[in-house]
Amino acid sequence: MDYITLAHGSGGKASHQLIEGLFYKHFQNDILLQGNDASILPKFSGRIAVSTDSFVIHPIFFPGGDIGKLSVYGTVNDLAMSGAKPLYITLAFIIEEGFSMGDLEKIVASIGEAAKEAGVKIVAGDTKVVESGSVDQIYINTTGIGILPEDIDIGGQNAKAGDKIIISGTIGDHGTAIMALRKGFEFSIDLESDCGLLSGMIHEILHTGAKVKVLRDPTRGGLATTLNEISKQSNVGLLLEEAAVPVKHEVRSMCEILGLDPIYIANEGKLVVIVAEEDAEAVLGVMKSHPMGKDAAIIGTVVHSPQGQVYVKTEIGGTRILQMPVGELLPRIC
Amino acid sequence: MDYITLAHGSGGKASHQLIEGLFYKHFQNDILLQGNDASILPKFSGRIAVSTDSFVIHPIFFPGGDIGKLSVYGTVNDLAMSGAKPLYITLAFIIEEGFSMGDLEKIVASIGEAAKEAGVKIVAGDTKVVESGSVDQIYINTTGIGILPEDIDIGGQNAKAGDKIIISGTIGDHGTAIMALRKGFEFSIDLESDCGLLSGMIHEILHTGAKVKVLRDPTRGGLATTLNEISKQSNVGLLLEEAAVPVKHEVRSMCEILGLDPIYIANEGKLVVIVAEEDAEAVLGVMKSHPMGKDAAIIGTVVHSPQGQVYVKTEIGGTRILQMPVGELLPRIC
Repeated sequence: MDYITLAHGSGGKASHQLIEGLFYKHFQNDILLQGNDASILPKFSGRIAVSTDSFVIHPIFFPGGDIGKLSVYGTVNDLAMSGAKPLYITLAFIIEEGFSMGDLEKIVASIGEAAKEAGVKIVAGDTKVVESGSVDQIYINTTGIGILPEDIDIGGQNAKAGDKIIISGTIGDHGTAIMALRKGFEFSIDLESDCGLLSGMIHEILHTGAKVKVLRDPTRGGLATTLNEISKQSNVGLLLEEAAVPVKHEVRSMCEILGLDPIYIANEGKLVVIVAEEDAEAVLGVMKSHPMGKDAAIIGTVVHSPQGQVYVKTEIGGTRILQMPVGELLPRIC
Repeated sequence: MDYITLAHGSGGKASHQLIEGLFYKHFQNDILLQGNDASILPKFSGRIAVSTDSFVIHPIFFPGGDIGKLSVYGTVNDLAMSGAKPLYITLAFIIEEGFSMGDLEKIVASIGEAAKEAGVKIVAGDTKVVESGSVDQIYINTTGIGILPEDIDIGGQNAKAGDKIIISGTIGDHGTAIMALRKGFEFSIDLESDCGLLSGMIHEILHTGAKVKVLRDPTRGGLATTLNEISKQSNVGLLLEEAAVPVKHEVRSMCEILGLDPIYIANEGKLVVIVAEEDAEAVLGVMKSHPMGKDAAIIGTVVHSPQGQVYVKTEIGGTRILQMPVGELLPRIC
């Protein structure tokens, strides 16, 4: 069969063929193979971290990634932001009738590889097929489960005045790559999504024993949204040095053409770390020596006031408030 | 704002207003309010049961329920089928731009009530908004987490020759109600979905100490699909007494008009129990005294052979093989 039909979502014979012929081929593990309404995970003890995300990105294949890879990395990254070790994900497809079986196989293979890279098992799944026109190609939900070590307390509420703000690399790469693709821009320079896995680098950061307060990946709404959220959760001010924020030349050019600010553009493989001042240089060093953090930089400081606001020191020496975005720059970016 | 806009899915200001103004109002609990990329659940020890399901039902409001209630019950029921105690669910919306805020609030309220009834906390969420035409109104994914008591081993692989098959009530109610609604049939008799919560009745069944082998809810593909799955997982034959299967008069009439067999029609509040013969009457008694099982009946027996097949003894005394459905009777039934 070259195309997905409604029967593939029926729960009947075609559904079972899809599960056994395609999904089990790429995701085989003892837990998934239980084949019951709920999957049973091995016994463990401790605190669990949970995160859920639906991926509706358009287009589904893009330079640097695809919806499959993104749907694994996105949820694994969110788990890692709590300091948890990601262990399991569930996977739910909503597919449009008539979707290409070849493209589905590409996505499924990409999910399988990403899960392997991230060290997570796909433990439960669901596939729905809807009539042509009732969904745009394919949407994916993943929900992740991780285990949180005993002594970890990381979260948006923990930033304190004096802490340093670090970004793991250049901002705006993902959103700009998608935008260029949608608008059909063809540059000789390459714009590529930063779609990547952050859990490995986070593991190394935590291993230093540094007093890490906040970890967050600035996806939808970009760095501006992430920093605004943290300032409100922690009731602190954040002071950002605009000149210190790394932006690729190609991204900056593209944003200038479109009249956008990279600080509002989505990233899919970047990490914001807020860490005690005395540990900032050590953490920066660890990040710079990791492939995901080679362009890492200290970009700002947590201050007492004004509470719940982000200030930017501009390159020419002025100061402005960095607002949370109000509208939608770029729908279906993830 | 009367309608959902793309900005509600941006991660920016409108997203936060939707989360704080609507979701927190109906789902408030300490875990959800953490407001981080991943939510941290309280410490516990044991085996975890996990299940994921996307709900794409059309229409989203129907006699006996709505997509919100269904999305909670569906996942909680799946968890309960393993013998687990459902504790937590995650909730992910994909909403079409222009969707009515009033309808969203109805759905969210319905989810809040259903979660309360089921005793589960909504611990993490996600909202994506896509352009008009890129999804049909609203789709919901829920992923559930439950804890499995030490000594429980229930699953489709456990049926043994001699065991009895019990159904908790009339079959085909959900699918027939949706079908009647879609086709615009107006009967004076009422066709209503059986959309309901099974975890309470399962708790009582397990409390008897009966040797329960399999629990499964015959949703997509109906009772025929569920029995076929179990016969294959357990490598046994299942012998079904057609005359013993309860079907409402209205459902039978509707199916006759449409040329369908209720045994293939979806249910959303029915339970198949396979239990050791010596415990069957006791379990039936417990089910009959529960509101969700008042029409419960023993409908068949597990036999040695033919392995992986379901046989039906028809009302006139013949025998036929009950096949798994091949095509799709009714897309978007759940």
